[in-house]
Amino acid sequence: LGKYVDVTAITPTPLGEGKTTTLVGLAQGLGRIGHKTFACIRQPSMGPTFGIKGGAAGGGYAQVIPMEDFNLHLTGDLHAISIAHNLLSAAIDNHIHHGNALNINPFSITWNRVVDLNDRALRSVIVGLGGKPNGYPRESGFDIAVASEVMAILALTTDLKDLRARLGRIVIGTNRSGEAVTAEDLKVAGAMTVLLKDALQPTLLQTLEHTPAFIHAGPFANIAHGNSSVVADELAVRIADVCITEAGFGTDIGAEKFFNIKCRASGLAPDVAVIVTTVRSMKMHSGNHRIRPGRPLPPAMLEENPDEVTDGAANLRRHIGIIRRHGVTPVVAINRFTTDHESEHRAIADVCEVEGVAWAVSDPHAGGGAGCEDLARAVLDAEPSSFELLYPDDLPVRNKIERIATEVYGADGVVFETTAQKDIDRYEELGWGDLPICMAKTHLSLSHDPKVHGAPTGWTLPIRRVQASIGAGFLLPLAGEVRRMPGLASHPSAFDIDLLPDGTIVGLS
Amino acid sequence: LGKYVDVTAITPTPLGEGKTTTLVGLAQGLGRIGHKTFACIRQPSMGPTFGIKGGAAGGGYAQVIPMEDFNLHLTGDLHAISIAHNLLSAAIDNHIHHGNALNINPFSITWNRVVDLNDRALRSVIVGLGGKPNGYPRESGFDIAVASEVMAILALTTDLKDLRARLGRIVIGTNRSGEAVTAEDLKVAGAMTVLLKDALQPTLLQTLEHTPAFIHAGPFANIAHGNSSVVADELAVRIADVCITEAGFGTDIGAEKFFNIKCRASGLAPDVAVIVTTVRSMKMHSGNHRIRPGRPLPPAMLEENPDEVTDGAANLRRHIGIIRRHGVTPVVAINRFTTDHESEHRAIADVCEVEGVAWAVSDPHAGGGAGCEDLARAVLDAEPSSFELLYPDDLPVRNKIERIATEVYGADGVVFETTAQKDIDRYEELGWGDLPICMAKTHLSLSHDPKVHGAPTGWTLPIRRVQASIGAGFLLPLAGEVRRMPGLASHPSAFDIDLLPDGTIVGLS
Amino acid sequence: LGKYVDVTAITPTPLGEGKTTTLVGLAQGLGRIGHKTFACIRQPSMGPTFGIKGGAAGGGYAQVIPMEDFNLHLTGDLHAISIAHNLLSAAIDNHIHHGNALNINPFSITWNRVVDLNDRALRSVIVGLGGKPNGYPRESGFDIAVASEVMAILALTTDLKDLRARLGRIVIGTNRSGEAVTAEDLKVAGAMTVLLKDALQPTLLQTLEHTPAFIHAGPFANIAHGNSSVVADELAVRIADVCITEAGFGTDIGAEKFFNIKCRASGLAPDVAVIVTTVRSMKMHSGNHRIRPGRPLPPAMLEENPDEVTDGAANLRRHIGIIRRHGVTPVVAINRFTTDHESEHRAIADVCEVEGVAWAVSDPHAGGGAGCEDLARAVLDAEPSSFELLYPDDLPVRNKIERIATEVYGADGVVFETTAQKDIDRYEELGWGDLPICMAKTHLSLSHDPKVHGAPTGWTLPIRRVQASIGAGFLLPLAGEVRRMPGLASHPSAFDIDLLPDGTIVGLS
Amino acid sequence: LGKYVDVTAITPTPLGEGKTTTLVGLAQGLGRIGHKTFACIRQPSMGPTFGIKGGAAGGGYAQVIPMEDFNLHLTGDLHAISIAHNLLSAAIDNHIHHGNALNINPFSITWNRVVDLNDRALRSVIVGLGGKPNGYPRESGFDIAVASEVMAILALTTDLKDLRARLGRIVIGTNRSGEAVTAEDLKVAGAMTVLLKDALQPTLLQTLEHTPAFIHAGPFANIAHGNSSVVADELAVRIADVCITEAGFGTDIGAEKFFNIKCRASGLAPDVAVIVTTVRSMKMHSGNHRIRPGRPLPPAMLEENPDEVTDGAANLRRHIGIIRRHGVTPVVAINRFTTDHESEHRAIADVCEVEGVAWAVSDPHAGGGAGCEDLARAVLDAEPSSFELLYPDDLPVRNKIERIATEVYGADGVVFETTAQKDIDRYEELGWGDLPICMAKTHLSLSHDPKVHGAPTGWTLPIRRVQASIGAGFLLPLAGEVRRMPGLASHPSAFDIDLLPDGTIVGLS
Repeated sequence: LGKYVDVTAITPTPLGEGKTTTLVGLAQGLGRIGHKTFACIRQPSMGPTFGIKGGAAGGGYAQVIPMEDFNLHLTGDLHAISIAHNLLSAAIDNHIHHGNALNINPFSITWNRVVDLNDRALRSVIVGLGGKPNGYPRESGFDIAVASEVMAILALTTDLKDLRARLGRIVIGTNRSGEAVTAEDLKVAGAMTVLLKDALQPTLLQTLEHTPAFIHAGPFANIAHGNSSVVADELAVRIADVCITEAGFGTDIGAEKFFNIKCRASGLAPDVAVIVTTVRSMKMHSGNHRIRPGRPLPPAMLEENPDEVTDGAANLRRHIGIIRRHGVTPVVAINRFTTDHESEHRAIADVCEVEGVAWAVSDPHAGGGAGCEDLARAVLDAEPSSFELLYPDDLPVRNKIERIATEVYGADGVVFETTAQKDIDRYEELGWGDLPICMAKTHLSLSHDPKVHGAPTGWTLPIRRVQASIGAGFLLPLAGEVRRMPGLASHPSAFDIDLLPDGTIVGLS
Repeated sequence: LGKYVDVTAITPTPLGEGKTTTLVGLAQGLGRIGHKTFACIRQPSMGPTFGIKGGAAGGGYAQVIPMEDFNLHLTGDLHAISIAHNLLSAAIDNHIHHGNALNINPFSITWNRVVDLNDRALRSVIVGLGGKPNGYPRESGFDIAVASEVMAILALTTDLKDLRARLGRIVIGTNRSGEAVTAEDLKVAGAMTVLLKDALQPTLLQTLEHTPAFIHAGPFANIAHGNSSVVADELAVRIADVCITEAGFGTDIGAEKFFNIKCRASGLAPDVAVIVTTVRSMKMHSGNHRIRPGRPLPPAMLEENPDEVTDGAANLRRHIGIIRRHGVTPVVAINRFTTDHESEHRAIADVCEVEGVAWAVSDPHAGGGAGCEDLARAVLDAEPSSFELLYPDDLPVRNKIERIATEVYGADGVVFETTAQKDIDRYEELGWGDLPICMAKTHLSLSHDPKVHGAPTGWTLPIRRVQASIGAGFLLPLAGEVRRMPGLASHPSAFDIDLLPDGTIVGLS
Repeated sequence: LGKYVDVTAITPTPLGEGKTTTLVGLAQGLGRIGHKTFACIRQPSMGPTFGIKGGAAGGGYAQVIPMEDFNLHLTGDLHAISIAHNLLSAAIDNHIHHGNALNINPFSITWNRVVDLNDRALRSVIVGLGGKPNGYPRESGFDIAVASEVMAILALTTDLKDLRARLGRIVIGTNRSGEAVTAEDLKVAGAMTVLLKDALQPTLLQTLEHTPAFIHAGPFANIAHGNSSVVADELAVRIADVCITEAGFGTDIGAEKFFNIKCRASGLAPDVAVIVTTVRSMKMHSGNHRIRPGRPLPPAMLEENPDEVTDGAANLRRHIGIIRRHGVTPVVAINRFTTDHESEHRAIADVCEVEGVAWAVSDPHAGGGAGCEDLARAVLDAEPSSFELLYPDDLPVRNKIERIATEVYGADGVVFETTAQKDIDRYEELGWGDLPICMAKTHLSLSHDPKVHGAPTGWTLPIRRVQASIGAGFLLPLAGEVRRMPGLASHPSAFDIDLLPDGTIVGLS
Repeated sequence: LGKYVDVTAITPTPLGEGKTTTLVGLAQGLGRIGHKTFACIRQPSMGPTFGIKGGAAGGGYAQVIPMEDFNLHLTGDLHAISIAHNLLSAAIDNHIHHGNALNINPFSITWNRVVDLNDRALRSVIVGLGGKPNGYPRESGFDIAVASEVMAILALTTDLKDLRARLGRIVIGTNRSGEAVTAEDLKVAGAMTVLLKDALQPTLLQTLEHTPAFIHAGPFANIAHGNSSVVADELAVRIADVCITEAGFGTDIGAEKFFNIKCRASGLAPDVAVIVTTVRSMKMHSGNHRIRPGRPLPPAMLEENPDEVTDGAANLRRHIGIIRRHGVTPVVAINRFTTDHESEHRAIADVCEVEGVAWAVSDPHAGGGAGCEDLARAVLDAEPSSFELLYPDDLPVRNKIERIATEVYGADGVVFETTAQKDIDRYEELGWGDLPICMAKTHLSLSHDPKVHGAPTGWTLPIRRVQASIGAGFLLPLAGEVRRMPGLASHPSAFDIDLLPDGTIVGLS
């Protein structure tokens, strides 16, 4: 098998730290120095594409092309996921409408509908209004499609047969006796599979420097598991010398799920984890600045200030620790911005050296593969890893959550609210206690409070509810307020996107 | 230009009369006798595919292949339409949420959301619940995606520039002064166009006998205009000797819209209209039987009974008259079923001969192209047409509607309910009086009452409301109760569709 | 038994024609000329009191006192009705919440909640939101309390035992087999009766000239039956020489229900019906003017114009005919306003004389009883009546409705919409076909269109739905758009009502 | 002024400990030993009357008569409160409907509607559905009428002028600039006052032994302030030698509000506080039993077990401490039940004696006034009090709440949730920081968790939100889950209440 490299990051600013760009640049860099490399990248959601954050193709000389198609609905996978998801939703209300032979408790239904857009008006809706021909009124909602359990299933499944079985296991709620009701019970798991048969195939694109890239599965590691797919990685490690895959946001979010959900499922063991960091994110963690999405950085952040970088180092150190807790060798990639100063890069390097971690300055945006050769070499030279899971399957659910909270996030402990307590007890009764944990938590802080930077200590993680994704195979605790459907800003990217008469697309990035 | 042939039908049974099968068979038959032929077929909606009626690929030896992909989301067009449509929906609520600078009157909004499924629970919903972060509560609904104005635009547009302009002209409601608010005002027409850029290209498939077929635009001529696209037809008439296109349901529904909306837009003039009829539909119009979707035919309908066929002839005669009213030469295709009797075909032929209309028995399902050679020759030999529109652009709206009601449907007149009166007055004030009419009416009767068979006289057409599709370029009166979102049956096709471990799809047809 | 006089009116302006004032003045006038008289008056609703129309105590020197208490919640009857009504509403949702042992079909429930206010926001609501502890979501609504069936029961019942039985018979909807579900089934008819035990007693007040007046039952004869109570009338005809009772709005509305519902129930036969008319209402029926509630009369209406009065006479003639159709002797009361002219009164008198109807000019507002002595004498001298019902109990429901439409309203016939057809068939099946009819129709026209004045001919009455008030004992067809819950105006009377520091109430009238 | 005695209790069982019965018995007992006494009792709500708990007239030989009228809507006060409250509700939606000149932020509206029934389906509703004529859709709810701020105003006001002013000060929400919108702004405070003018008068009834009793204001001290009225008490202390008034539930609930809200408003200082206790409640606080409303007591509770009584003494001691914290002399009334044992009374007496508190066994139910003479003497002989408020007006809001939590409830501290923090900051900005606190907390525990008995320590009080009742003059923090609208049980009292043909009421108690 090829070398298996995960690209992750420190706790990012709301603007992102260039993780995908680094991944693409690193893949290109490895190619330049003679290694057959495959990049495994996630399918963008049109929510951010039309929202504030924009597309997810990388940037500058480290991009997946054609960028426009990549960022829109090239692969059709998200549409297939949406329609398969919504077919199950329709089947639920249809079943109740036609007499509810399964005796589904309508208050137990956790299966929302989805749309791959930021549409806050759909977060909380009442469906089934207008009288008997339209079914029974019910409070429900829509999530963004990438947060669908069907996406998680697609990311974790291994083949068509497993896909069919997982879709059948999806639990949409319970009957009035408290027993789980599944997609199989509702008789649409077959049709869902048929809708997803092509989506199961990773889409092959390439980077600007012709490195092959699999596009498969989706983002949003804060509210989903947010990793690229097992199928793509399995293919890539067999085809290439190096397979570089991506785990969303910081190591507490995407990488923790990469280790404990995805690698647990696939059996693959990562060799290296690249932690992408930037001068600006280090400065943010100093606590001296406030960064807002859609606005330029505060000018004070752009002044040369290596001490401030050092002040923000606690966050980086924590992320290094998280990687090491899983037995994996970290490499720090310092993603260069034009506004950086040499002294600031040095300050980051100093932190790494104290910690005994390899590092490289990389410049994928301006330099493409050439700008990432140092990083490529650091990755190749990394010490061997000895991967270990954070918790065994049979640890009780509460303890699993506590272990993540304390050993990954740095919390003192966990408070389970009443609803969460009941959820866990019920799930353990239903025999789901052995499943791994997929935390829904903000990606903007190591804690559950997006305003807290650095590496906070002396706090407690609140768990409000726990949901169950039985088809995907994990339990999903909600830490603090986490929205599964974003909203559009007052001036979203969609306003700037247009098609010129000559067919050129403008405004997409 | 090639010969331009429209395939339409008499008022069908709920099972359909094999219009697409005849179209494919006819195209194959023309090929067999040496004519380069192109079929222009509509993209199926997943609503019927997973519902009762099933797919729309034709059948037997007269099919478009690969049938499975054709019936699912092969082209992705319906997904592109759905997401473009829903992006505009999200933009509306987002605009109001961020202060409503355009002063949109929330009660005036007619732009629903869409999903390409039968989901009755979404017909009538309340969105925007859950407090200020989720926007303002509003009564709204979902339509099936094929009924979207975006689909109508895609079917009627001619190029990317026109597509962009039409999307911008979509009217979603009015401001508090009663002025129209458009997609352009909401600044998302550009992004919608970008989403649709690939959908504008017709998809090229082939039939079992290798006749090329363009797949483009969508069905549901009862609640939309339901014709295949202008772009596909324009291409086909330039490439081939014969272009065969399809207009949904009976001549009162699809063909009337084909003539007065689509041909008005494209400037193309049809040469022949093939009216597909069947023994069973003729018998239904005798008024002696009741046919129910999802159930087998009443056995009494299968007995030899040419007199009953003759009793049901009034409906066929009316459809012949509708075609002739537009100056077009009709040809009647008697679509053979294995349960037919020779004497019954003869009875239909007798009706045609009295009317002076050419006819042929065709057998596309069992015979493929070979079974349609007679029909092919009848089409080629048809007298030349002299196409004329039913009404000029500048006829007042009420008169246009009355002309359709009396000269096409055979009504004595029209009753405009109060809301419809107000709608028409408002539209004429807003300068939309010159647009053609796209009636929303049941396809199961020449009248607005689906239970009335034959060719009813002495009745009045009620118009409840009139909607405006300014981007598509028509006004949409609702005649009687017309639902823009179907529901699933208690045992829909979706239950039978599955994927076998070897990758075979079962249950799709 | 004493003489039994009903006070009714021609089709009124939105301002009302002084029916209650005339009633009080007539009662006072009869007293002045030596006849023991009792007035039976309806309890005002706080909807109009706080809305536009104001109180219902009469006016000037012909008032019930204390006016303030009379117009507010003196008797408490409407509160008792509201709480009894709403207890049944709560019992319905509670029953479903606790398992729905009666198998109530939630879509069949016709029993709304009530409040005695004009509150348009409550017309259409969704109740039962917020999850399982709050019951099942359901589309429902609130009516104004005077429109409650409980009010109708109170008006038509004869004693506590009958009240108990009628409350038990109230039908709130059906079970899933289509059988009626009653208040008795829901086990709260006893508690409802206990709540109403004091409301069953008429409240005794007096007029400014010390004529005794029973206050009992409620108004809104357009959407309810709107007559004063059987109990009060039965008492009064036994105590007094003359009992004067009131039937709301025109003879087509209140008097028709007085005859065919109330007298059918009580067995009492009226001796005289006083038709109150005014110069301004006659002028309105000429069709020359438009009167708006809350605005002053158009000045042109105040000019001397006896011809215009004559032009509006068709309406009065029709009302005279309606009274005579029931075998009752009409007397026309010309209620004088200070803006009237002698010649205009003469014009009305001429109409009456041609019709052979006794008449008198009365001036209750300025003259009190003295101003109504002529009217009093005309009533005493009226020819004897020979009362007959418009239709027998066993006439089929459709025919009863048609008879009212054609013989009372002057329509050519009735169109029953589909829902109404189903309602009637179901009610006849359930054995309710023998009940009398309580039409819900606008009081502002003899037709169902409030904008049509005079005595229209050549029209058809549309019946949308039919409701069933089995406890009250009638069927309730809805003719056109009839709202059972009014809304407040932009400047309702409530804004002007206040309590001065000395305890004086201002703004009530 | 007469002696001013408050009757309160220890933390009760769900069945109640006979506080009203003791109050009536004590008043009768004082009468028997020669003291002119007046009882001030609260108006029952029809929610409990028709629910599980039943009426509130006392019981046995210590009752207010006529019990039936007392428990139903004798005084009409709750109806007047309901209609005045709902008039303001209607005015809010009407104002928005007519253009929202005050620019009310619909999401800020905290003024619900009310009904005096247990109707869970109304807890959470959407109003204003059905299109423009019905106003704007809005999420809202209904509270039980006794929880209305109008009830609190009626209880705390001193005269008509003050009533008028307080109603005008009611804050229903804010405008979009965050400024308070009042009933005065909405112009209906005058009409509301007029509706309440008679309700301001206490209703005079009597007990079975002819002790006069004022019935005024309402219960539900858990979600409202739940004390009898200032007006009634002011009258009674001027008329009688002794005025006995009632504060709902335990001293932590009703008495705390009596001291810090009612006495702060009236300026009256209590002389004695009678703490009613029972053997069964003492046993419940041992933690050994679970008592459920609507079910008989566990048989084990009825066995002689003085040790268990002693085990539950911590709760009583805490209540004694709460009274003393306010400088008032407590007297413990041991309300005898037939199932008690002498030794158990002795156990309670021992607790009192250790605490130095006077006590008496009383038997109002079986013995009437005679059974309460000991208690009467204990009250008369009580040491003089030196009343003091728990906190000054100008203590910051958070500190007031913390003082109640720690010094009254025995909590370690308070956790203010985010919403509560914002509420308090906003209220202090709006100048409402000087108002006293009216906690909404369960009455079934000294803590916020109804399942915790005894006198818990080592816990923290969570405050979710804080509401503002500016007309009543207090802030209303919600501690834990507190419902302002009860629901009916599966077999509520309403099912047993009926009216026999002879007019007898059965089933009320």
